[in-house]
Amino acid sequence: MRVVQVFGRSTRSLEEAPDGRGVLVVDQTRLPFAFERVRVDTLAGAADAISRMVVRGAPLIGVTAAYGLALALAADPSDTGLSAAVATLAATRPTAVNLRWALERVRARAVAAAPSARFDVAWREARAIAEEDVAMCARIGEHGLALLRDVAARSSGAPIRLLTHCNAGWLAAVDWGTALAPIYRAYDEGLPVHVFADETRPRNQGASLTAWELAAHGVPVTLVADNAAGHLLQRGEIDACIVGADRVTRRGDVANKIGTYLKALAARAHGVPFWVALPASTIDWTLDDGARIPIEERSEDEVLRVAGRAEDGRVVRVAVAPPGVRARNPAFDVTPAALVTALVTERGSCAASEEGLLSLYPERRPA
Amino acid sequence: MRVVQVFGRSTRSLEEAPDGRGVLVVDQTRLPFAFERVRVDTLAGAADAISRMVVRGAPLIGVTAAYGLALALAADPSDTGLSAAVATLAATRPTAVNLRWALERVRARAVAAAPSARFDVAWREARAIAEEDVAMCARIGEHGLALLRDVAARSSGAPIRLLTHCNAGWLAAVDWGTALAPIYRAYDEGLPVHVFADETRPRNQGASLTAWELAAHGVPVTLVADNAAGHLLQRGEIDACIVGADRVTRRGDVANKIGTYLKALAARAHGVPFWVALPASTIDWTLDDGARIPIEERSEDEVLRVAGRAEDGRVVRVAVAPPGVRARNPAFDVTPAALVTALVTERGSCAASEEGLLSLYPERRPA
Repeated sequence: MRVVQVFGRSTRSLEEAPDGRGVLVVDQTRLPFAFERVRVDTLAGAADAISRMVVRGAPLIGVTAAYGLALALAADPSDTGLSAAVATLAATRPTAVNLRWALERVRARAVAAAPSARFDVAWREARAIAEEDVAMCARIGEHGLALLRDVAARSSGAPIRLLTHCNAGWLAAVDWGTALAPIYRAYDEGLPVHVFADETRPRNQGASLTAWELAAHGVPVTLVADNAAGHLLQRGEIDACIVGADRVTRRGDVANKIGTYLKALAARAHGVPFWVALPASTIDWTLDDGARIPIEERSEDEVLRVAGRAEDGRVVRVAVAPPGVRARNPAFDVTPAALVTALVTERGSCAASEEGLLSLYPERRPA
Repeated sequence: MRVVQVFGRSTRSLEEAPDGRGVLVVDQTRLPFAFERVRVDTLAGAADAISRMVVRGAPLIGVTAAYGLALALAADPSDTGLSAAVATLAATRPTAVNLRWALERVRARAVAAAPSARFDVAWREARAIAEEDVAMCARIGEHGLALLRDVAARSSGAPIRLLTHCNAGWLAAVDWGTALAPIYRAYDEGLPVHVFADETRPRNQGASLTAWELAAHGVPVTLVADNAAGHLLQRGEIDACIVGADRVTRRGDVANKIGTYLKALAARAHGVPFWVALPASTIDWTLDDGARIPIEERSEDEVLRVAGRAEDGRVVRVAVAPPGVRARNPAFDVTPAALVTALVTERGSCAASEEGLLSLYPERRPA
């Protein structure tokens, strides 16, 4: 089932090319001003698409890396080629754990096969990961919808006002998304929702991706500066916050797009629920403490310049800082579990704690 | 004494024109890519300069309004003209209280004079307000410097890392600034400082004004996205936060540029001092509760578009959101007194509380 619509047409962020030797991905660096697919059909192409953020979002990074590894094996199915491809893809982004999870899954399948069968085996595993991601996101939508219904039951017919940060919609996954999946479900069921989307500097995924995909589906959305969340929460204008995640530790600490932590602090200060939606592939069972999650530092250029459409229609990058000024650009921050009201996974919602996660994933309980 | 330098030359944000019938102000909408003065010589010109944010910053808004009222009286010194000019100027910005304070001060002087003398009386009062602002900011610098010395004493020679939001430098006042005055004093005395400047969307005053004026004076500055503060504070990379204010209630609640509240929450979460620097003219003794401060909502266009310099050198505005998407744009938020470590005024530092403020301003103690 694919329900998310772009101007009335169902779509996915990544699809297999008809020839079965590449994938077509939406070029997210071109949104919201152009909706174009580009073909990825080599290891280098996949690594470039992930590192340049042509594709982004923890689930989609994982799926793209899985296909990228399969494509690498089409060119070089040797053990050496396999190891080199895994290393290349793993190095593209340090924070999202789905990337490493997906690579390990495909690698384990491939290494068990004869070199001549490795491409086929890896391709089928990548496809399985993609299809599982769609199914997991659909279930996250179901479980999140239950939370939204609870809010709606208290709001006597007024629209539920939700704050989200960055983009955790279908563009961040294969379909549905994580944080936006419950919102799409609510909207499709006729539950009134209104989304406040943080702009999400420095790369503006809230403006260019979240506002775009919600508006394309018809969901009411209002863009706000990243600075506005505290004021809106203080004035009682937000009923709940829902965001995605790039990595969640076994104790429930959440690495997500830079700025998430500030919004979580403000939500807590005003008693507003702060939900984090994620598939199991985002959980890093090897880490307890969020302070140990590696935080990617990206180019200062992303802070010093902003991309947008000029009045003549051209998309250009403009400098916002004086020449010579330097910038820092941490791409993620860590929200401690104590600030998270609930984790919403494909198996249901739970407390952001080791006990909470183990209640949903009992197979992870130490023997 | 004017010590703040722009590329080695002393300067002020506002100066009287040599003919005494207008003021020359730095056009802050053109920074950081052009440093130009424009002449304001009518009521309409002053109102336009304030509302379009050619001049901005609570102290400078007050001074500009004072001169604007004098200029209005040059054209029409009648009681009717006086009242109409006060109303016009008071309506330009709702949040900064310095505006109303300065207008009332000039109005009281003018109304006591014969119409023929009103321009001269008002002009002299505006000049007095401007000179007092410079003196107050210099003293804020002294008192803030004492706080910075305390931090330095604990940092064993490493640079003091300060976070600031928006612009509360000499561009926001006549000279020195409020939050940046202690930083200029520290730098000039050889105390090592490093400023992290929040970009301050939607109007980017951190990038276009704070980074510009600090760099022009030689103070080390790093630009960060508004989203980054929580991460930097969490990782122990900020020693203290210092911001300005647009209005402070008698109990110490602080209205300042949107986003200030989020930073104050994060500073508190990590035990980092959060200082607010302000002259007495920013205190609203008539208000107890910050929730009653009117919060200006500005055009959604400021959120939907970003101004910057394109590669061809032209300064252009680019759309960052998809066509048709709407935005909200509250320009200020209120930081509760409980989150403010100290208020730094021209009379010294105090707790952000009624008792704290009354200890510095005993003449305001109810009889």
